[in-house]
Amino acid sequence: MPNKNASKIVVIGGGTGAFTVLSGLRKYPVELSAIVSMADDGGSTGVLREEFGILPPGDVRRVLVAMSHSDRLLSDLFNYRFEEGGLKGHTFGNIMLTALERVTGSFEDAVDEAGRILRVKGKVFPVTLDNVRLLAELEDGTVVRGETNIDIPRHDGRLRISKIWLEPQAQLNPKVVEAVEGADLVIIGPGDLYTSIVPNLLVSGMKEALKKSRAKKVYVTNLMTKWGETTGFTAADFLVVLEKHLGKRMLDYVVVNTKRPQSERAQHYEKENAEFVEPGNLPSHPIPVFGDYLRNRGFVRQDPERLAKVLMSLI
Amino acid sequence: MPNKNASKIVVIGGGTGAFTVLSGLRKYPVELSAIVSMADDGGSTGVLREEFGILPPGDVRRVLVAMSHSDRLLSDLFNYRFEEGGLKGHTFGNIMLTALERVTGSFEDAVDEAGRILRVKGKVFPVTLDNVRLLAELEDGTVVRGETNIDIPRHDGRLRISKIWLEPQAQLNPKVVEAVEGADLVIIGPGDLYTSIVPNLLVSGMKEALKKSRAKKVYVTNLMTKWGETTGFTAADFLVVLEKHLGKRMLDYVVVNTKRPQSERAQHYEKENAEFVEPGNLPSHPIPVFGDYLRNRGFVRQDPERLAKVLMSLI
Repeated sequence: MPNKNASKIVVIGGGTGAFTVLSGLRKYPVELSAIVSMADDGGSTGVLREEFGILPPGDVRRVLVAMSHSDRLLSDLFNYRFEEGGLKGHTFGNIMLTALERVTGSFEDAVDEAGRILRVKGKVFPVTLDNVRLLAELEDGTVVRGETNIDIPRHDGRLRISKIWLEPQAQLNPKVVEAVEGADLVIIGPGDLYTSIVPNLLVSGMKEALKKSRAKKVYVTNLMTKWGETTGFTAADFLVVLEKHLGKRMLDYVVVNTKRPQSERAQHYEKENAEFVEPGNLPSHPIPVFGDYLRNRGFVRQDPERLAKVLMSLI
Repeated sequence: MPNKNASKIVVIGGGTGAFTVLSGLRKYPVELSAIVSMADDGGSTGVLREEFGILPPGDVRRVLVAMSHSDRLLSDLFNYRFEEGGLKGHTFGNIMLTALERVTGSFEDAVDEAGRILRVKGKVFPVTLDNVRLLAELEDGTVVRGETNIDIPRHDGRLRISKIWLEPQAQLNPKVVEAVEGADLVIIGPGDLYTSIVPNLLVSGMKEALKKSRAKKVYVTNLMTKWGETTGFTAADFLVVLEKHLGKRMLDYVVVNTKRPQSERAQHYEKENAEFVEPGNLPSHPIPVFGDYLRNRGFVRQDPERLAKVLMSLI
């Protein structure tokens, strides 16, 4: 039973960032909704989109696992990636979402059923039910087609993205309108700016729903830059791009990490040309929420508990 | 919680026959165990065995669905067969058992976990955990290798099978020993004689476990003959082959259908050279249990309810 008094939190994103936010927040007595971008077209997801004409399952899978209250085995199963034969490269969860789409007749129902099987507390919504592609124009005029070609650039990654759009134009999933408009807190990011975050804001109706919503709106900037997307970016640069697509004065807070990882942890990132995101010249609005959100060890990622704690304090 | 007073029933077989028996019996307050042959090497199962070196998932999948107490959707999902791309021909359930084998590290654990997800009441045991192939020698001396080549003969299907064996010799799964020895009723069949039923009896230790068991033992003969396996067989012929592999005086009962399907229902079977199984010259022991076990419409198969009722009366 949903708790009538529980805060309603909407998380907009995809990929590892959404996983971090959701896995921290799921321990609180809140009503969680995750809005997932439908632009992914790489790897196993790309093959399944191509062969089955379905919406992209990859980010949905990650978000479902982050919100799952089932035992570890089911999560491991859902994330298991086949290494042999004709199934090679596919994750089990992607295959399951594909089969569920065929059995139920809709991707939305497939996501709901997978959520039921994984005992997900909360809701997962594709941002749109339209089948779209992500395109970008670089500062030199080159047009890059497909999310995976933006995500893993084959062009010079120092070129900035000057324009990004969906083809065809997509309509917001009506359930997303409802979730956003009824939310107490909307969290955008962290996540790859142009490939996981902005594609959600490009969907027709998203800006309007966010404007109408009385929720507090927070943007969580990334810890590290990404080659070809945010090369050389400060947190302030992230915010500029976000506000370009969201509109000014929409955000209430921007959460910015100030803790620099030790150089040996950042080494792994050097070969990916990823650098620590400095705060940069942030404005006074949205209100910057500085802090040490860095995980104590391992990959340079946010700590789910500390991030969730600060996010909960913003409601 | 298992009911201490519930009768313990073991079903030995595979394929459609085991599905019929199990889906009828699961409505009774009994403790069901299904023993599944590990000889299948055709279709999706064959590809997954080849590529992943796993035990054959196909018959396990069918039996799990027969014993599932989950909703219809999960059974439909488990039986869903992909029709496109690189997944074409695979059933979702087979893929799931393959992924579970990798995640848990054993096929037995994979079967248990799939049973848990499908809310199976009862147990499903691979008859052996050894990786085996089924071979047959025909009356003209030809050796046929692989279950699928016996099941779908490329040789003259009128030739009788004179000898059948597993390579390498396989050991009985210890959990099967326990289930058979503790059973009140053991049901063998119905099912393809040489490809679904006898392969279970060829495993070292099965005859001994059955001999030791105080269970009533019943063989359910087939309704229709199968080209290349039981061409021209009467129920008495089925029994002769079964007892050749099981030993004499092991069975207590043989369940024989006497209701002939109307000719229009049998038409479909003509092109497969399948004929109605006449009772033939049955001995007085095992005790023949004659009756109308034919489903009222559709495929010429046993009626799950009527078959379960007569089986329950034999405990």
